[in-house]
Amino acid sequence: MTDIVFSESDRLEIGADEYLLRRDRVFHLLTDREIDALCVFGPTRVAYLSGFFFSPTERPIALVLTADGKVAALLPNLELSHFQQQGPELDDSAIYPEYPGGGSGRHPLLFLQALLGRLGVLGKRIAADVDGYEHRWGYRGPALSTVLGQPVQANVALIDDLRMVKSAAEIALMTEACRWGDHAHRLMQDSIRVGSEELLISHGASLQATRDLLAELGERYVPKAREGLPANAMFIRGSNTAHPHGLHEAGTVGVGDVLVTGAYGVVGGYESELERTMVVGEPGAEFQRYFAAMLAAQQVGFDALRPGRTCAEVEGDVRRFVRDHLGMDGLVRHHTGHAFGLEGHEHPFLDLDDHTVIEPGMVFSVEPGLYVPEFAGFRHSDTVVITATGSERLSLYPRELDALVVPAG
Amino acid sequence: MTDIVFSESDRLEIGADEYLLRRDRVFHLLTDREIDALCVFGPTRVAYLSGFFFSPTERPIALVLTADGKVAALLPNLELSHFQQQGPELDDSAIYPEYPGGGSGRHPLLFLQALLGRLGVLGKRIAADVDGYEHRWGYRGPALSTVLGQPVQANVALIDDLRMVKSAAEIALMTEACRWGDHAHRLMQDSIRVGSEELLISHGASLQATRDLLAELGERYVPKAREGLPANAMFIRGSNTAHPHGLHEAGTVGVGDVLVTGAYGVVGGYESELERTMVVGEPGAEFQRYFAAMLAAQQVGFDALRPGRTCAEVEGDVRRFVRDHLGMDGLVRHHTGHAFGLEGHEHPFLDLDDHTVIEPGMVFSVEPGLYVPEFAGFRHSDTVVITATGSERLSLYPRELDALVVPAG
Repeated sequence: MTDIVFSESDRLEIGADEYLLRRDRVFHLLTDREIDALCVFGPTRVAYLSGFFFSPTERPIALVLTADGKVAALLPNLELSHFQQQGPELDDSAIYPEYPGGGSGRHPLLFLQALLGRLGVLGKRIAADVDGYEHRWGYRGPALSTVLGQPVQANVALIDDLRMVKSAAEIALMTEACRWGDHAHRLMQDSIRVGSEELLISHGASLQATRDLLAELGERYVPKAREGLPANAMFIRGSNTAHPHGLHEAGTVGVGDVLVTGAYGVVGGYESELERTMVVGEPGAEFQRYFAAMLAAQQVGFDALRPGRTCAEVEGDVRRFVRDHLGMDGLVRHHTGHAFGLEGHEHPFLDLDDHTVIEPGMVFSVEPGLYVPEFAGFRHSDTVVITATGSERLSLYPRELDALVVPAG
Repeated sequence: MTDIVFSESDRLEIGADEYLLRRDRVFHLLTDREIDALCVFGPTRVAYLSGFFFSPTERPIALVLTADGKVAALLPNLELSHFQQQGPELDDSAIYPEYPGGGSGRHPLLFLQALLGRLGVLGKRIAADVDGYEHRWGYRGPALSTVLGQPVQANVALIDDLRMVKSAAEIALMTEACRWGDHAHRLMQDSIRVGSEELLISHGASLQATRDLLAELGERYVPKAREGLPANAMFIRGSNTAHPHGLHEAGTVGVGDVLVTGAYGVVGGYESELERTMVVGEPGAEFQRYFAAMLAAQQVGFDALRPGRTCAEVEGDVRRFVRDHLGMDGLVRHHTGHAFGLEGHEHPFLDLDDHTVIEPGMVFSVEPGLYVPEFAGFRHSDTVVITATGSERLSLYPRELDALVVPAG
């Protein structure tokens, strides 16, 4: 991936041309599938198609695309000026005063109905990513099909399938995100000591990594969220790591603790993924055995990824290795990985039941894990992009045990 | 609110007895409404009824409660050990290997169907908060009613109405959360200088406040999330504040900037809310006029809140004041506030179209805002609990202008 997409002075975000191209693809899809209008409720899908990033609340927002190439939106008054600043020009819009009604006496979806009426698509073939706004925070509302009194073809795949193959710009942003995830992880690893609090070490490293990112990128870094840092690292420790998704725990790092980490950057709204299994003090024989097994399984995952194979075949390679070579099938608690980009996990999944064909430009985490009850979890995760002939790791943090031991002294 | 709920040594979280009580309420509701089984998919609702807090992903999780008092769950293998550690004892469970199938060839909701079969409720009256798992991350799946081939009564209100009135323990946790929100805000305010980066100042203060929280509470603080800090503060600045939900922007604080802040604690999973409008350097006449107007409108909101009134009546008081006394109705972009607790916004809303009757124990944000295009936004927000006769502010941060000026020098 040596294409230069962003120059040294470009802002690190998707440009207006690429958003136009994405919407063009949708317009063609609508025509091909004989759909007259598509309502997009999912906040990430709205951002993907419009460049409008916002803080999702109980206030429904929908982007509407029609087969004849119109772009319209349902917006709360709260977000109008914000959309005008970030989003594309609209052919029409419905601005509602507030959820649940703000004195209008009307549910926001009734404003969407009126907009669809003005667009001339009521009674025609209407699709949506989901059939109505999902129940974020205190939102309550009917299905869109109920409001409209007509069928709505609900189909998240219509847009999410477009998101599977990343463009050169998306890969460039994720590569940059990986660089900052690696940096945050390095700062975190270097500051872990016996007696460290996991929350304080994690966030101290995240903060310093963010400071470095802002110093280096300056105004090229364009935040796309209301909360969170662009460079993050965290870890859990001890037997809590035996839960694949252990929550944070109070308390401090001790000698012999296994640590399972996670670090990521966010650049232009795109995330990276990096996870490492570490140990405090001299690793014992049991730790070394499981660590080596996990590392070998991850390598099988890297080697298995190439265009033309299916996700299920990749997972099949890893599971066969874990079962036949390692004899550790009983320690597996999840599949090998997932696609991602604007969200932490995206479709498709490296899973025995996902038969999606892998294509160049897809980006996956590769993270087969082994979980030993009461003892510890063993999982590395890396960000991998599919190339024309195989795959390439974008997270470059060391994977070998000798680079992942925290000194006990 | 002077009841002592947690002793000096108690862990700051909801106890097992209260979770039992919550489920008992649901069992009674099911009987009253002639529902045989309820499937709960919403992650916050699952946590509310079970004490099982987890990191929500594309892997569906459902809690099932039956009218005859059984508790069951659909869980991915990934979360089984975690549920066993945190959740209640189950009468039955369905553990699926992985989403989308992990080699089982079956969608997770088919495992839920089998579980409902074993519980003897298939073909009977089944309700759910939502009709199937919502589309988090890369999740794709059918409606539950489609899987079961029978009607499913979808009703988020069934559980969320129970969440409206907070218990003494919930109020105690939110009071403690307010204390840490206030503290984080104080640290942030004290470190803002001309030339400060908003992200660095915000997260530096959040980190220091978290350090102080962990030092004071020690193991009494029980994290309920995989990411984020228990004490947070942030701000946006300049004309970006004219967007009620402006995202972060790169760049630094300048003389004359208006700042709109947000700070919150999270204790036992419960949040607080605190927002302040500030200014860098001597406030000009225009700033002072809008600030005073906003402050007065917020006071109207505090005074309007008491049991027996409706949310719409409270909002009516504030909107009349803004229109008739201030003549600033055109600057309003959102209603006065929202309930909250486990989530940042919850039902009901202080909105002209929300006719919920206010009861003691409800907790609201009070945050009428005035947004002057191109200039700035003006909004304070406080956490307010409804008492037997009126309301009480739980966030105690100063509200007056002289306490909210950042020195320019």
